Amino acid sequence: MAGQLVLDESLMQNVVPDDLFHRLQPFVSLIHQRMHEGIDDGLGWLKAPLRDQECLLSPVLDAASRIRQDADVFLVVGIGGSYMGARAAVELLPGAGPQVLFAGYQLSSAHFDQIWKHVEEQRVFVNVVSKSGSTLEPALIFRLLWPRLVTRFGEDEARRRIVVTTGVTGALRQLAEANGFPTLPIPEDIGGRYSLLTSVGLLPMAVAGIDIKAVLQGARAAALNLQEPELAANPAYRYAVYRNVMYRQGKIVELLVTDDPKWQSFGEWWKQLFSESEGKDGQGLFPATAQFTTDLHSLGQYIQQGRRVLFETVIEVEKEPVALSIPDMENWSDGFDFLAGKTLHWVNRQTIKATRLAHADGGVPNLAVRIPAVDAFWFGQLVYFFQKACAMSGYLAGVNPFDQPGVEAYKRYAAAVLGRPDLSDLGKELQQRLQDLE
Amino acid sequence: MAGQLVLDESLMQNVVPDDLFHRLQPFVSLIHQRMHEGIDDGLGWLKAPLRDQECLLSPVLDAASRIRQDADVFLVVGIGGSYMGARAAVELLPGAGPQVLFAGYQLSSAHFDQIWKHVEEQRVFVNVVSKSGSTLEPALIFRLLWPRLVTRFGEDEARRRIVVTTGVTGALRQLAEANGFPTLPIPEDIGGRYSLLTSVGLLPMAVAGIDIKAVLQGARAAALNLQEPELAANPAYRYAVYRNVMYRQGKIVELLVTDDPKWQSFGEWWKQLFSESEGKDGQGLFPATAQFTTDLHSLGQYIQQGRRVLFETVIEVEKEPVALSIPDMENWSDGFDFLAGKTLHWVNRQTIKATRLAHADGGVPNLAVRIPAVDAFWFGQLVYFFQKACAMSGYLAGVNPFDQPGVEAYKRYAAAVLGRPDLSDLGKELQQRLQDLE
Repeated sequence: MAGQLVLDESLMQNVVPDDLFHRLQPFVSLIHQRMHEGIDDGLGWLKAPLRDQECLLSPVLDAASRIRQDADVFLVVGIGGSYMGARAAVELLPGAGPQVLFAGYQLSSAHFDQIWKHVEEQRVFVNVVSKSGSTLEPALIFRLLWPRLVTRFGEDEARRRIVVTTGVTGALRQLAEANGFPTLPIPEDIGGRYSLLTSVGLLPMAVAGIDIKAVLQGARAAALNLQEPELAANPAYRYAVYRNVMYRQGKIVELLVTDDPKWQSFGEWWKQLFSESEGKDGQGLFPATAQFTTDLHSLGQYIQQGRRVLFETVIEVEKEPVALSIPDMENWSDGFDFLAGKTLHWVNRQTIKATRLAHADGGVPNLAVRIPAVDAFWFGQLVYFFQKACAMSGYLAGVNPFDQPGVEAYKRYAAAVLGRPDLSDLGKELQQRLQDLE
Repeated sequence: MAGQLVLDESLMQNVVPDDLFHRLQPFVSLIHQRMHEGIDDGLGWLKAPLRDQECLLSPVLDAASRIRQDADVFLVVGIGGSYMGARAAVELLPGAGPQVLFAGYQLSSAHFDQIWKHVEEQRVFVNVVSKSGSTLEPALIFRLLWPRLVTRFGEDEARRRIVVTTGVTGALRQLAEANGFPTLPIPEDIGGRYSLLTSVGLLPMAVAGIDIKAVLQGARAAALNLQEPELAANPAYRYAVYRNVMYRQGKIVELLVTDDPKWQSFGEWWKQLFSESEGKDGQGLFPATAQFTTDLHSLGQYIQQGRRVLFETVIEVEKEPVALSIPDMENWSDGFDFLAGKTLHWVNRQTIKATRLAHADGGVPNLAVRIPAVDAFWFGQLVYFFQKACAMSGYLAGVNPFDQPGVEAYKRYAAAVLGRPDLSDLGKELQQRLQDLE
């Protein structure tokens, strides 16, 4: 297992002059230096893969081993960065073990009811994930789950079936200690959207049977490959520069393109990483995802001929997962005889390459991030690549890529409308406005 | 079953002056008149719900009844408008019957392999859906399926297990006739993205056990409610005007917001409808979707404080699907005791209302489309509402909402790169460019 992912920039060459890279190099070098000096809170993910990971791995593997012996279903209760990365991994990577499901990422009562009906007869473990423990959705879903688990298993056994992944302080840490729930830590210096390679993401992956050592090896390989400040040698920084230039050229929507439905949650993870890191101070690329060739019959028209505000980043996978030949059919008048004998994967890749040309010719510049295969190692590389690119991209745009003041804004309105006692003045004001509206 | 969906415009009042509606009324009236006169090809969906639907319903119900008696799985092979609406309905509406799965909407060999392994031991029926039959993805997937079905069932029985939904002419019609596959028609004057309420969408729905008569009743109610040219009386046209004004104010991304994961495919249907209808001539709103409260922990930061290019359309459902009370817990230090006794649905709705205020205050205007319940009747209303709004919106923007020239552009590049004999010159040129790139 070695090698480095490739950033294919060929369809950018007529759009972004080389000269820009030279002129931006000093900024990139400065940011690199300050980032590696740890200038802001939230940079803990940057060097973690380079350190000995034994003290991270060992409790996660122990917990996973205990759970795998005795679980049909592993239910992760978390929202945002507390579930998206794990979900991406579980959907993307082959594994074998208990079914891993997700709840607590929204408040739909129908969804909770469906999940509970699915798990209530099964041997279930619950992983409550929240750095602070003060987030509405997972807290309420845990409130609904706990009495049901106690009824089902009795209190002692129910307690054993919980794992709480949380920060060193906060409401959930207190709750875990008061109730004797087993815990795993979230480091203070890693925020939710950068927490995939901590216990947050690693426990669900390990329970699902994914080789988390290989994931961390991939992240380590990427960390080693991406520690040069020079743009010529650092594809993560080059990607960050392209994003920055695209935005300033008016390409304010970035489409992450993948070629298989199993990438969907990865796309959601990527959207959170970039939108929450960069969408502030009135600026930021709007991140969207597309699945090709599916969405060529949906967004395709817009991409080809709609408003010229898009650019694309395409994840290309070299390896053919399953070889399926297009059969030669007699008297089969579908007009595709010329593809007989080709594999479906070849057709898929060629179609996407042709589409990249069509889009570039139509005014939609595009990059490709190319990996040889979808496995644990390359997943780790990809995650670290995007995390480092995101940090550089945010700093280049002049924002702090590690805060999320806007999330607090909506949380405050919501808590006030829901009647949190200490926000009663704001609550009254907002309730009045809501009444006036109806 | 009666009533009309409500367009809640309250948070638009400070953003779009009333006066604009007066000034746009003449354009709307003119478009309305020409649309109802049938000015362009592709308007067949407009009056269909007002006509006697017996000749549409009867063959669909017959086929569904035959299939439901003898199927564990119903596999729909289609892409774009040939599967998205059906998938939206099946995921959104409760039904009972064979499992309905989808293939042919992409070219992933791993995905096909997984689907085939799932169905090969089961009693499967296959519905191939393509108006022309010349679309790459469903054609290749059908090529892969047919020999497998013949091996499994023998040729005669395999033939009986196919239903071809296609136009009156074209490659798939010929193929069906040559091979004796049962067929259902797609009307000539209804394009793919407007075809949900034809055999295309209705057969999978009926097989899934959805009451398609109620769906058509909903569409009929909407068609009756939305036949006034006056903006004051027509929420679909008002929605179209808001979209038009938002775009000209620089809000070039529309987010469709829903509150439950089961709306995901509906969002995909909506994205196709609008992006393919409007994304042309260098213009068009970019359609994206978000699920609340999930994405408040992802896109939420961007929405609240990122670039001010967004507006939102929120689908609000009144009825509580499942009543789940937040339990009162002793010594449970999560900080949410003030919500004990409230239902999860109430919390969800209040949170989303609060968020609408927070977003409006942050510079993201938003509308709500409000329906009393998620059922077949209201699904039909919603579909027709968006279809009619989309047509008006496209015409107001000066485009033809019923063509898709950009899809042809990428299809031509793809066919050339794949080696279609009649495109060999273009194929050589593009292959050369691809080689130069690698």
